[in-house]
Amino acid sequence: MTKPHVVIIGAGFGGLACAKALGNSDVRVTVIDRRNHNLFQPLLYQVATAALSPADVSEPIRRTLARYDNIRVLMGEVSGIDVEAKQALLADGARISYDRLVIATGSEYNYFGHPDWHKHAPGLKSVHEARQIRHRLLLAFERAERSTDESEKRRLLTSVVVGGGPTGVEMAGAISELGTFMIANDFDSLAHDQFRVLLVEAGPRILAGFPEDLADYAANYLTRIGVEIRLESAVEEIEATRIRIAGEWLPAGSIVWGAGVKASPAAHWLGVEPGAAGRIPVKADLTVPGRPGIYALGDTALTLGADEKPLPALAQVAKQQGTYLGKALRAELLSGRTPGPFAFHNRGNTAVIGRNAAIFDFGRWHLKGRLAWFLWAIVHVWLLVNFEKRLLVSIQWVWRYATRQRGARLIDEDAADQLRSVP
Amino acid sequence: MTKPHVVIIGAGFGGLACAKALGNSDVRVTVIDRRNHNLFQPLLYQVATAALSPADVSEPIRRTLARYDNIRVLMGEVSGIDVEAKQALLADGARISYDRLVIATGSEYNYFGHPDWHKHAPGLKSVHEARQIRHRLLLAFERAERSTDESEKRRLLTSVVVGGGPTGVEMAGAISELGTFMIANDFDSLAHDQFRVLLVEAGPRILAGFPEDLADYAANYLTRIGVEIRLESAVEEIEATRIRIAGEWLPAGSIVWGAGVKASPAAHWLGVEPGAAGRIPVKADLTVPGRPGIYALGDTALTLGADEKPLPALAQVAKQQGTYLGKALRAELLSGRTPGPFAFHNRGNTAVIGRNAAIFDFGRWHLKGRLAWFLWAIVHVWLLVNFEKRLLVSIQWVWRYATRQRGARLIDEDAADQLRSVP
Repeated sequence: MTKPHVVIIGAGFGGLACAKALGNSDVRVTVIDRRNHNLFQPLLYQVATAALSPADVSEPIRRTLARYDNIRVLMGEVSGIDVEAKQALLADGARISYDRLVIATGSEYNYFGHPDWHKHAPGLKSVHEARQIRHRLLLAFERAERSTDESEKRRLLTSVVVGGGPTGVEMAGAISELGTFMIANDFDSLAHDQFRVLLVEAGPRILAGFPEDLADYAANYLTRIGVEIRLESAVEEIEATRIRIAGEWLPAGSIVWGAGVKASPAAHWLGVEPGAAGRIPVKADLTVPGRPGIYALGDTALTLGADEKPLPALAQVAKQQGTYLGKALRAELLSGRTPGPFAFHNRGNTAVIGRNAAIFDFGRWHLKGRLAWFLWAIVHVWLLVNFEKRLLVSIQWVWRYATRQRGARLIDEDAADQLRSVP
Repeated sequence: MTKPHVVIIGAGFGGLACAKALGNSDVRVTVIDRRNHNLFQPLLYQVATAALSPADVSEPIRRTLARYDNIRVLMGEVSGIDVEAKQALLADGARISYDRLVIATGSEYNYFGHPDWHKHAPGLKSVHEARQIRHRLLLAFERAERSTDESEKRRLLTSVVVGGGPTGVEMAGAISELGTFMIANDFDSLAHDQFRVLLVEAGPRILAGFPEDLADYAANYLTRIGVEIRLESAVEEIEATRIRIAGEWLPAGSIVWGAGVKASPAAHWLGVEPGAAGRIPVKADLTVPGRPGIYALGDTALTLGADEKPLPALAQVAKQQGTYLGKALRAELLSGRTPGPFAFHNRGNTAVIGRNAAIFDFGRWHLKGRLAWFLWAIVHVWLLVNFEKRLLVSIQWVWRYATRQRGARLIDEDAADQLRSVP
C-alpha cells in the first residue's frame, strides 16, 4: 500500500508547523511555496527600516525541513485546485495529486479596490517590498540633501504610514527613529523640523485590536517622538509624490501601506463563498465544508474562537492551527482516529513602538514600556528559526541599542536606477 | 580667505582613504559617489554564493565619514568634467566647483566588445550583480529539482565561470562547495554527478598574477573538489542558456563573468589618451599631465611600480595611493610643501580557493593551504569597516565552518518573477 500523500500549500507559520508535525512519519508530505524561503514577518519592518538584513529574518524552506525524510519541498506557484481529480495545479502546468490538501497561503495587503496604489505605497509582506521601502526612505534623504528647493526638501522628508495597526505603529516609530538619527549625524543640510512622519488611521483610534490603555500609551509615545497621528482620516488617493487624506493633498517622499489584509485567493480556487476579508470558512477541525480532504488554516481560514468571534490573522493562530492539523492528520491517516476540535490558546498580543517601548496584552494582564520592550525582544529572538539567526539578530540589536546605528542602510544600484524616474 | 575645496569622485578604497587623510583639516572636501555605500569587494563573491548578506560587506559612505566635519558626501552620478571651469558635472545638471579634483572611480568588467553578454553573465562589481548571481544559482537548483527532463536538469546544474583570475577562482570554488552541499542535504531529486562547475581561462594557466607554484596548488585543489578547468579556451559567444567556448556550445544554468577589468571612462571626461585597459596615465605624484589640479588613483590610474611595470588593479594599491594623496594635498594646500613621489609597498597578494585552502604571495615568501586560509580570514575580517561587521562576519564564518550551512540562501520574489522568463 502506498503511503498517504499530504500536500501543503504555503510555508508560512501555519504550513511549516503542519509539515513539522507530520515530519518523519509514514505520511508523504509535499510543501509547495512560490518562495524558496520562509519569512519571519514580525521583524520585516526592521528590514524596511535598515536595521536588519533580509537573510536575518528568512531561511530556505528546504533547510528548515531538511531533517525530515518524508517531506519534499517544491518551489512553484499554485494557480488552482482540481477538487474532482484531487490535484493542485501549478502555474507552469504541473499537477500534484494529493490525498489531503492543506491550504496555508496566508494573506496579502488589501488596497480596498485600488490595486494601483501598491506601486506608490508598498506593504510589508515580502522581502522585496521591505527592500523597496528601505530604498525609498534612504533615497528620499539623499535627494533632500542635494535639493536646494525648500518645499521639495520638506516633501522628500515626509513619510506617511497608512494604517494604525501593529505594522503601521511599528513602521512609524522606526521611521521616526531612523530619520532623527540620520539628520542628527549624517546629513549636513537637513534640519529636524523639515522631517515629518504621519500615521494615518481611518478609525477612531490606533491599535484597535489592543485594550485602550495600551493603545493610549502607544499614541502618547509616538507623539512624543514626533509622529503625527491622524485619526478618522481615510486615504482617498495615492500618487507617486502625494497622498490625499480626508480631502487634503499631502506631498510625501515615501508612503507605506499597512491598512488591513485580505486572504489569498484560495476560496476562489475551491469555489466556496468567502467569509470576511476573503477568508475560507472552516469547521472546528479546520476542514472546508463540502470539500472532503481539504483543510485551511491561518490568515486564509475563517475560524471562530471560544467567544464565537473570528480568530485574528496572527502568527500564533496560524502556528497553533498548523501543529494541531499536522497531529490530527497523522492520527487520522495512520491510526484512523478522529481528532477533537481546534482550540486557540492566547499567548499574548504584542507590538513594539520604539526604543524601550512596547506593549503586551495577555488578556487580564497588560504590560507596557521598557519591560514590555525587553520581553518583546527576548520573545522575538527566541522565535527566530535557528541559533545562528538568534545570535546575529541579538548582536545587531545590542549594537544598535548602544550606538543607535542601523547596519543595513543600503540602497541597491538597481533600485537607485529604477527610482531615478520617480519624482 | 575661503578654504580650498577638494572634490573626490568615487568612494571606493582609494577615494575613502584620500578623504580620511584629509579629514578634520582646514580643507573642504566633497565626496561624490553614485552609490550611498562603499563596498568591500574582496568578499562580494560570498554574497553571490549565499554566505553573507550585502549589508555585511558594505556601509553607508556618510556613516564612514560622519566623524569628519570638513567632509560633505553627495550621492550623484558624475557625467563629465569641465576642465576649464574647474567643475565636475553631474548627470542631473548640477555643477560642483573644485580647486583640486581626485578621480577614484575604479574599474568595471570588460566584456571585450560584447556589452550584451552582461545580462547573461553578470560580473562581481556591485551588490546588485552579486544578488543577481545568487538568485540565478539558487533558482537553477530549484528548477532542476522540478524538472523531469534529464538533459535540462544537467543544463540547469552547470555553472560556468569565465576568467581564471582571483575572482573566477574564488567563485568557482564557492559555487562548487555550495552546490555539493545543497545536493547532499536539501534536494531530493538531484544527484552529484549532474552538477558541473567549469572555470574557463583564455590564457595558458589560471592565476596569472601569482607565482606558478601557488597557481598549481590552486588548480589541483579546484580539480579535487570537482571544478573542471579549461585553459586556452576563449569565450566566443554567450546566450541566455548556453556559452560557446573554443568552438563548442555548452548548455549552462548560470554563467558568471570575471575575465578582466577596464577603467571607468574618466580618461574620456578629461580628454586624455588612455593607457592600457583604459587607465589614465599619471605621474609619480598622481597628477594627470597637462590637467593642472587633477589627480587620478587606483584602478582608474596607470601608475608604474619600482620595476617600471604598471601597478596592478588591487585594493591595496588604491588604498595606499589614497592615503598618500590625501596627505600630499594636505601638505601642499595648507603648508605649501611639495610632496615626494608615491611608492607602493606590497602587503602580499592573496586568493581564497575553498575551505582550508588559500594562497598568499609575499614576494619571496609563498604560503598555501590551511595556514594561508586562516591568515586570509583574519586579514579580511580585520579589513572590514567596523567592529560590528567584523563580529557579524566572524560569527557567520565560524557557523559555516562548523555546519557548512550558508545563511543567505534567499531568492527575492522580484528576482524570481524576472527570471521566470529566463529559460
